[in-house]
Amino acid sequence: MTIPPVSDSAIRVRYAETDTMGVVYYANYLVWFEVGRTEWLRDRGWTYREMETNGVKLPVIGAQCEYLRPATYDEALVIRTTGIIHSAVRVEFRYEVVKEDGTIAARGSTMHAAVNDRGRPCRLPPQVREVFQ
Amino acid sequence: MTIPPVSDSAIRVRYAETDTMGVVYYANYLVWFEVGRTEWLRDRGWTYREMETNGVKLPVIGAQCEYLRPATYDEALVIRTTGIIHSAVRVEFRYEVVKEDGTIAARGSTMHAAVNDRGRPCRLPPQVREVFQ
Amino acid sequence: MTIPPVSDSAIRVRYAETDTMGVVYYANYLVWFEVGRTEWLRDRGWTYREMETNGVKLPVIGAQCEYLRPATYDEALVIRTTGIIHSAVRVEFRYEVVKEDGTIAARGSTMHAAVNDRGRPCRLPPQVREVFQ
Amino acid sequence: MTIPPVSDSAIRVRYAETDTMGVVYYANYLVWFEVGRTEWLRDRGWTYREMETNGVKLPVIGAQCEYLRPATYDEALVIRTTGIIHSAVRVEFRYEVVKEDGTIAARGSTMHAAVNDRGRPCRLPPQVREVFQ
Repeated sequence: MTIPPVSDSAIRVRYAETDTMGVVYYANYLVWFEVGRTEWLRDRGWTYREMETNGVKLPVIGAQCEYLRPATYDEALVIRTTGIIHSAVRVEFRYEVVKEDGTIAARGSTMHAAVNDRGRPCRLPPQVREVFQ
Repeated sequence: MTIPPVSDSAIRVRYAETDTMGVVYYANYLVWFEVGRTEWLRDRGWTYREMETNGVKLPVIGAQCEYLRPATYDEALVIRTTGIIHSAVRVEFRYEVVKEDGTIAARGSTMHAAVNDRGRPCRLPPQVREVFQ
Repeated sequence: MTIPPVSDSAIRVRYAETDTMGVVYYANYLVWFEVGRTEWLRDRGWTYREMETNGVKLPVIGAQCEYLRPATYDEALVIRTTGIIHSAVRVEFRYEVVKEDGTIAARGSTMHAAVNDRGRPCRLPPQVREVFQ
Repeated sequence: MTIPPVSDSAIRVRYAETDTMGVVYYANYLVWFEVGRTEWLRDRGWTYREMETNGVKLPVIGAQCEYLRPATYDEALVIRTTGIIHSAVRVEFRYEVVKEDGTIAARGSTMHAAVNDRGRPCRLPPQVREVFQ
């Protein structure tokens, strides 16, 4: 059995990402998820940019996030990401946002559909499958 | 049987909200959801601001969104929002982002827990229940 | 002498736009400036979108802003915008962000260079000059 | 003569930071400037967070940016920052956003006024002066 590979992306909370409550605004976790999956793909030898110039896109068709503990300005966080093949036409990424003390700030996932260069849904091409296995 | 009240918030897609794919970046729908629930609360006679000065907060503990059709720069959209009591300690908001032709760009929801002025979870106070019923 | 026309864009401060200090994060004024100039152009009969499909772009080459009074969550603001021809190749927009009591929250400007569809600097085409006069 | 110290902050362009033109949206440079000055202060032994708990704030009262070359998704950039004392009550930060080939994407500055814990303008306290010298 293969264990899906995990990538860790270190980020630091920016002032712009906080809100009046003094904590990270909830939409920003989705921005960090993108940072996480970009790095996961890069670690596996491929970048979004290359994928897009090759005519394959993986637009988000669904996202969800649970907020467990607030994060505050200047905090060092790790986005822990893994990617899996969900079906013949979809891949899924899962994320944990980990605080310095090891507790989880948030946990979420995004679902992505393969789309060809004319913007039509398509089966995951072999070069995408390879990255995710 | 009462039908939960709905509020419509008109927005126009800002350039800042689009990305390299030429469509609205997925995290921004959560920002719009906040615009929707702020307006829903205002329509029901209460504002976040008042609620917060009264010592009651409703931080987001979960969010999810399905992306159905892309939205592009300068497009006029409506955020259709409704709020319901989910349990003794939680309220839920549901959202649809409607395009000018009546089709749905995205659909989502957020879950909120009542928190008192010391940041501790608490039962929904009567003045919050009243707004949601 | 002609007075340059002014457009007023009403906005309401979003929670996402505030920061830990409890006020609007400074970069967001530039986002609002874009809302202002989009509306100014629309009021003058032309949209960014059309301009871009016509092969003329007006990318920002400089921006500046003075912050005079903080703005807070849920505040209703007006972005007061005017546009002028700065030279044969540049236009300038000027902005004031006005609070409900009539005081100014911020004041700024952006400089834009005309660029053709191959991304090269060019003289302001007649249809752009017309809009700005 | 002392040379003002410089700090370099490495960032990578996020998808959320790009726009329909396929380049970084102009307001995001101000977000990066904040990343730069946070790191500059940290390198000099002090953090915003500590400064704020000590009752001294340095809110932005002015910002400006010149955009020289576009930056695109996934590009690795360096924010080169320096801070100087501007007057008895103000400090200034200057920034260059440097591309991998050494060319400058943008250049800007922010002006900050010292404010005490009651939100009133004040002279730069000794512990701030020390950091900037």
